[in-house]
Order: sequence, then C-alpha cells, then structure tokens
Amino acid sequence: MKKTSIILSISLFIFIFVGCTSNIETNNSTLIQTNPLPSWNEGETKTSIINYVTDVTNTESANFIDIPDRVAVFDNDGTLWSEQPAYFQLYFAIDRIKELAKDHPEWKDIQPYKAVLENDMQALAATGEHGLMKLVLTTHSGMTTDEFSASVKEWIRTATHPTKNVGFDKLIYKPMLELLDYLRKNSFKTYIVSGGGVDFMRASVTEVYGIPEEQIIGSTIKTEFKLVDGNPEIIRLAEIDFIDDKEGKPINIHKIIGKKPIFCAGNSDGDLAMMQWTASNSDDSFMLYIHHTDSVREWAYDRDSHMGRFDKALDEANEKGWTVVDMEKDWSVIFPFD
Amino acid sequence: MKKTSIILSISLFIFIFVGCTSNIETNNSTLIQTNPLPSWNEGETKTSIINYVTDVTNTESANFIDIPDRVAVFDNDGTLWSEQPAYFQLYFAIDRIKELAKDHPEWKDIQPYKAVLENDMQALAATGEHGLMKLVLTTHSGMTTDEFSASVKEWIRTATHPTKNVGFDKLIYKPMLELLDYLRKNSFKTYIVSGGGVDFMRASVTEVYGIPEEQIIGSTIKTEFKLVDGNPEIIRLAEIDFIDDKEGKPINIHKIIGKKPIFCAGNSDGDLAMMQWTASNSDDSFMLYIHHTDSVREWAYDRDSHMGRFDKALDEANEKGWTVVDMEKDWSVIFPFD
Repeated sequence: MKKTSIILSISLFIFIFVGCTSNIETNNSTLIQTNPLPSWNEGETKTSIINYVTDVTNTESANFIDIPDRVAVFDNDGTLWSEQPAYFQLYFAIDRIKELAKDHPEWKDIQPYKAVLENDMQALAATGEHGLMKLVLTTHSGMTTDEFSASVKEWIRTATHPTKNVGFDKLIYKPMLELLDYLRKNSFKTYIVSGGGVDFMRASVTEVYGIPEEQIIGSTIKTEFKLVDGNPEIIRLAEIDFIDDKEGKPINIHKIIGKKPIFCAGNSDGDLAMMQWTASNSDDSFMLYIHHTDSVREWAYDRDSHMGRFDKALDEANEKGWTVVDMEKDWSVIFPFD
Repeated sequence: MKKTSIILSISLFIFIFVGCTSNIETNNSTLIQTNPLPSWNEGETKTSIINYVTDVTNTESANFIDIPDRVAVFDNDGTLWSEQPAYFQLYFAIDRIKELAKDHPEWKDIQPYKAVLENDMQALAATGEHGLMKLVLTTHSGMTTDEFSASVKEWIRTATHPTKNVGFDKLIYKPMLELLDYLRKNSFKTYIVSGGGVDFMRASVTEVYGIPEEQIIGSTIKTEFKLVDGNPEIIRLAEIDFIDDKEGKPINIHKIIGKKPIFCAGNSDGDLAMMQWTASNSDDSFMLYIHHTDSVREWAYDRDSHMGRFDKALDEANEKGWTVVDMEKDWSVIFPFD
C-alpha cells in the first residue's frame, strides 16, 4: 500500500481546517467594479455565475431575492482550499501526536501512537477505524476550547505541506476568494459548511476567507461546561457529537441557519445532499461544483479518489445542469502565490 | 393539585416560542437619538446599561470592543416575553393535540392524549414525565420542517393567552424590544439563546424581535434528510437532540456562535451558566437579570416558581454585582399594549 494512499484512507476519518492570507476584500474592491472575478477565465462558467447574481439582486427582476434570504454555503476541503494528498487536518493530528508525546512516554509502545511516532503509515493504517478515531479524539479533546484553538493557530503558523512545501494556508483558491467577496458585495451571507472540525476551522478561517466564526459550520465533538476554581471552562470530550458531512450538511444548515440556501458550492459526493437541498429552494438557486482537473497546477481526481470523491454527484450535476467548474480551463490562477 | 400548578409542572418538559408585533425598529429610531430606552425609568439600572454601551463602543475608551466581538445573547421566556402561568409552548402542544385528534380517533382512549382531549390537567400530570415527553414529541415531530413551521404560524396567529385574553404574541416586553434595538444600533449582534424549540421560535420570532432565524438558538429534536419522489425533505423525528438550557446554553453558544458574548440577559437559574460564561470574557461584559416583581401588570415570582425559578442565580447576581432589573420599579411600560 503506497504511503499516499494510506494517508488518503486515514484521512477519511479526519476533520479539516483552513489557512491564512489577508485583505482579500480590500485588494479586490476596485476590481469588483469592472471585473468581479478576475481569476476566472471568460466563458460559460463565469458568465453563468455573474448572470445569476445580477439577476437575483435586481429589484426589477422576477427572480429578485431579498437580502435576508441570500444565504450562500461553501464546502471547505477541495472547494476553498486543497485536500491532497490528504485532508490537511490529518497532518495537524499527526504533528500534534508528536508534540504531545513528550508528556506521554507510554505512547512509544501503544498503537496508533507508536505508528505515528515512527512515521510508519502502514502500521497506522493497520490500526483501522478504531485506531484512527482514537488518533483524532486524542488530538482534539482533553483540553479547553481556548487551549485547542491556540494549538491550531500555532500549527497553521508553522507547518508546511508535504509536497508543495508551502504553508497549508497558502493552498487556498484565489478564484473562490474572489467569488466569496463578490457574493458578499452583493449582500449574500457566506457560510462554510464542512466535514472539518468547526473549532479547527475557526482557529484560522476568519481571516482567510473573511467569514466570521458564527458563519462556520462543521463537525463537532461533545463538550462539557464546568467551573474550575470558580472560572467557567468548556472542555472538549473524546466523543463525537455530529459529523457535518453528506446528509449531515442540510441537517446542520437547517438546525443552525434555519433557512434554505440559494447558493451552494462544493466538490464531492459529500456535498450532494446540500446541493439537492439548495436546488429545492422555491427561489432561484445556483449550484456550483468544482471539478479538480488540473494535475499540473493542483491535482486531478474525481470518481476514484479517496479524498473528495466526485462520482455520483458528477452524474447528478450533469443530469440537472448544475454548473461544473473545470479548474484547468476556467481558472487563470489557482493559488494566490501563482 | 391546582390546575395552574399542574400546568406549571407540565411545562417543565416543554420548549418555548414567541409572538408577533412589528416595526419596533422604525418606531423607535427617532427616540433613540434622545432617549434610547424610553420605557425604562430613570435610575441606576438604566444608567448602568447606557454607560456600558457608551463605554465599549467608544474608540477612545480603554474598554472599546470591536464590532465583530459585540455578541449579545438573550434568553426568551421571562426575558423577552412572559412565561406564566406556563411556558407558552405548552399551550401550543395542547392545542395541537386537539387539532391532530381528528386523524387519531384512538387517542380518546390513550394517555396522555385522553387527558388533553378531556381538558383533564390532573390526569395529564399523572402521566408523568414519560407522558409529557410523549405529548411534546407527538406534537413536534412526524412532519417536515416546513409543515411544522406552518402549524406554529397558524397557531400564533389565532391562539389567545388563558388569563390575559390577548394573543400570546402581545405579551412581549416593550423595554426589552427597546434594548434589543439600542444594542443593534450600536452594532451588537443580538441572539436568542433559549430552552424553547428553535424551529418553534423561528416560525414567528424573526418579525417580533427583529432577530433573523440564524441568530435564534434553542432546543432541537433530531431530524432526517431524505428524498421523497426525488424532492429533498427534512423530517422531524420523535427524539430529543439537544436541550438548550443551563450548561447547554454556553455549550451551544460556543458550538454555534464560536465566541464568548459580551452582553447576556436572562431571568432564571437556567440562564446562570451563560451568565458565568459571559462574565468570564476578557473584554468588559454586562450581565442583566430580569426580576419579576410586578404582580399587577405582569406576574411576581422568583425563588419558588416552577417557571423561571430565580434562586441560586439571584444570590450570585447580588454577590457579583450583576445588574438586576426590578420590573415594577424600572419599567414604566411592560407590554406594548399598556
């Protein structure tokens, strides 16, 4: 089993998070006037997005949608930033185990920690779902919410991607930052709805995408509120609360936002349910799928990928005429550093 | 056992919801300039609120708090509208049983439905926690989210309070509407964080308080996403998901908002944990407790009440110097119709 594909399968159990750039809104504000999506090549995809936004924000249009109903939801991994060779949150978990190992000498003999400490991905994969879940829960629980947030912030500031050799926070998609900005300038409220851990994403995502903490929805673990020497703390417990993926996405959208989106962006079968939910809006809605087709500048994968498998949803997108972005063809720039 | 006290104990198991008035923001906008809280009598309570808001929104102040961090959370029952003689959501559940009974002839012989249909509150109470939970789950599940919302909207439009003989949606506190408005005009984001059912509140609360659906947090039941003839639906299941009360309040605030409030308003021991959480903010924060002291215009109750028991929290508020509103003394008007 190749190292990459082992990491791929490990990552299926892991949540996700996000990197750091800044001042997107300020940088683009002048461009918006003339060309709201400068990193998108001219063509049907770009035109369809601009036509939709122009139409539903035009008070003279029969399709006009009032501001409070302009809810836009975005998947994160593979939609706003990369997810290869594995969901970035897995690398956090691995690095965190190595860091915590100082206080846990016993780990050198216990799986799945032993495998991580020995960089033995094959042995790690052999620990199976149980071992991997243990890895996630160990690295994401047993501390206060503040402590966890601080550990994520420190990690994202210092860690680098295994093959691209840049910080994980550099591997965000410039065209999508422009799209978020364009929608916000048209009074859309932009949300992230991701399988990634919500506190993991919040620890850095606010600055990256200009999306505040309260508009980030993700997977959660259970927590406990308690007074420690009279001071209230929220402690992260080693127990899954909710997995915000597949059918969990529209369920969480209903629970937390309480209204149906009019705009949905995603890249995988895990986003299909929230696409269907958005498509069922009685207002005119827009479904945008990102197809990873650029093996040179990013990665090319779809139906057979462990990360972001795009198979059933690709068929449904084609069948229903949803907009599918061809990354190689539609995006003139992928990463801000390109 | 008196009818009222039976309803009181029944209501402990029930979530809550909210009524309808309108144009609060428009009506008050001119007053805001000269007197932001016209229904609040001059005195220490009113002064402390205005001094706090003026201070933390003043860029020259050492206590200045940036707009994204101006999170204000409000309990609903007993804080924004009345909760006597029982949480209003209980009356919805009872009326709903009577309405649904047409399609359930078998209910006339089965508890707890029989008791409700015969208006026998004593028999209803005798069904115990199990019977009452069945009542709630029956009336709040087994339908789509859209259907449930429609049923709440129709009920609030037509139902009247058992002793005040006005619509439940008239029993909202004018001083609190002014406070919500005042905070929003100072760029606070106002949230409801209530033990009431979130979908129940959303079905009417947006117009009442000017708080959009996505800023309403409450108790939830589990739901299921599924395609029915190709159309996605979210079905409400007869199973509790999360009770947003006591320690559940700060847990949900962290999970959904992701930051600590700077302003918290409540009226009972059920709000104590979120008060403590707010008080632990490293920024200057404000804790406001409503004390029901007006037996003539509203109701007077505290330490021994089944609804909104204010006992342990009253001690802690006094001990810590949190602001406690004396409704009789501090409010010149209680309901908008006064």
